[in-house]
Amino acid sequence: MILSDTVRVKVRFSEVDSIKMVWHGHYVEYMEDARESFCHKYGLDYMHIFNSGYLAPMFDMKMRYHHIATIDDVLLVTITYRQTKGAKLVFDYVVKRECDDTLIFTAESTQLFVTRAGEFEPSSPAFFTEWKKKNNIEY
Amino acid sequence: MILSDTVRVKVRFSEVDSIKMVWHGHYVEYMEDARESFCHKYGLDYMHIFNSGYLAPMFDMKMRYHHIATIDDVLLVTITYRQTKGAKLVFDYVVKRECDDTLIFTAESTQLFVTRAGEFEPSSPAFFTEWKKKNNIEY
Amino acid sequence: MILSDTVRVKVRFSEVDSIKMVWHGHYVEYMEDARESFCHKYGLDYMHIFNSGYLAPMFDMKMRYHHIATIDDVLLVTITYRQTKGAKLVFDYVVKRECDDTLIFTAESTQLFVTRAGEFEPSSPAFFTEWKKKNNIEY
Amino acid sequence: MILSDTVRVKVRFSEVDSIKMVWHGHYVEYMEDARESFCHKYGLDYMHIFNSGYLAPMFDMKMRYHHIATIDDVLLVTITYRQTKGAKLVFDYVVKRECDDTLIFTAESTQLFVTRAGEFEPSSPAFFTEWKKKNNIEY
Repeated sequence: MILSDTVRVKVRFSEVDSIKMVWHGHYVEYMEDARESFCHKYGLDYMHIFNSGYLAPMFDMKMRYHHIATIDDVLLVTITYRQTKGAKLVFDYVVKRECDDTLIFTAESTQLFVTRAGEFEPSSPAFFTEWKKKNNIEY
Repeated sequence: MILSDTVRVKVRFSEVDSIKMVWHGHYVEYMEDARESFCHKYGLDYMHIFNSGYLAPMFDMKMRYHHIATIDDVLLVTITYRQTKGAKLVFDYVVKRECDDTLIFTAESTQLFVTRAGEFEPSSPAFFTEWKKKNNIEY
Repeated sequence: MILSDTVRVKVRFSEVDSIKMVWHGHYVEYMEDARESFCHKYGLDYMHIFNSGYLAPMFDMKMRYHHIATIDDVLLVTITYRQTKGAKLVFDYVVKRECDDTLIFTAESTQLFVTRAGEFEPSSPAFFTEWKKKNNIEY
Repeated sequence: MILSDTVRVKVRFSEVDSIKMVWHGHYVEYMEDARESFCHKYGLDYMHIFNSGYLAPMFDMKMRYHHIATIDDVLLVTITYRQTKGAKLVFDYVVKRECDDTLIFTAESTQLFVTRAGEFEPSSPAFFTEWKKKNNIEY
């Protein structure tokens, strides 16, 4: 089963730099927009994780810039859950320009679980195992 | 007695917008840089306020843009404490370009005190009265 | 005739600071979101101004924080054009929380016109006079 | 010959998120601070590249978060030029906490060259070949 979500982002004037490109750091925000939408859609939002006793800090990100985006571009940010063994959250991201489907950006992110006291959790927390089961994720 | 501090800020590439000006919203960050430096210098930092049972959220800001700043400009941000009656923190800000003293930006900000439970505090908290006395501020 | 627009903004996780409030500087972005939407709706967008030979840099902003906003809040940002004499663009902003109509934030902004060569334009540029006429703005 | 630079970054109040950690996206700014300092130090700044007819947009970034940083932390961001064949700029980054040398963050970034007209430049531009020679970089 593929879990996926897409958000629509209009490039802000202030996100475009002096060479008329979206500054590369803003894509981290677009990734977060998609991730928050996904987590809301599938019941894995920040408050649910927090109330289960955990945080899910970012551990690793890989980003690839394929084509520039610029003022007034509308971007479609698609996030897909990647099935992995182990206690981590891995997402893949694809950003395309809405008007002509141009590939703009791809990325992946990995989050680990830590307890609210700050201890790294190496095995899958109960809430995460349940979430996988509810969404028919095999392992 | 005048309480004042100045920080030096180099404009970041990513802070300059597509018309080669520092985007107007970034000055809020420059103001915060100066305010944090001031509060550290004079013992009024966030942790001191917090440990005294209070927060000092922003209530009001007025900003005036006199001249543009651009890539590689170095700015001097001067913050000055304004004496006022009542339970509030008022600061004045002047931003000048280092190389030629051009006036770039002026602003003022007002913060009020709320308890950590979120209640507005209309009279001067004890820590603030003490702070004024220690710094020879009359009222 | 009242010219007005409203945009819906969902508070991002990264916009909330360590005391669980939307950091005050992010409201400048919300104001810009509303202004860009307004300018697009009424044909006064950045490219139209630029192609008419002008820029409209920010000159003055006044901001008032009435109530905090926090994680997952959805905000309605309403921008209204204020009729003024002279060559300037003045907007009023009201931000309310969608779920219960709580007043969060109010502001006003003033932009002046400069030519693309950077010269201040004290009288109303032709494109602006035309725009006012087209939108039944008296003066 | 190793080309390297280190900048000192004080974590801003507004950079810390609601779980008291520096929000992961801000490290892109810290990387840029180090890169701009490096490029200024070694004569490879934006204006030099631009005046030679090129831009150096970001192509790829890999980021790893080792330990959280929080309010009032002072970070040392070290950037090192990585020798590579081909027409690209590759940098490695190490962020440590100043007070106790804790490893916070590592990253690498790759920039490619495009002409100011936006065409990808697959072979080393003259200005870059010269820059390498001047800095005793072998290939």
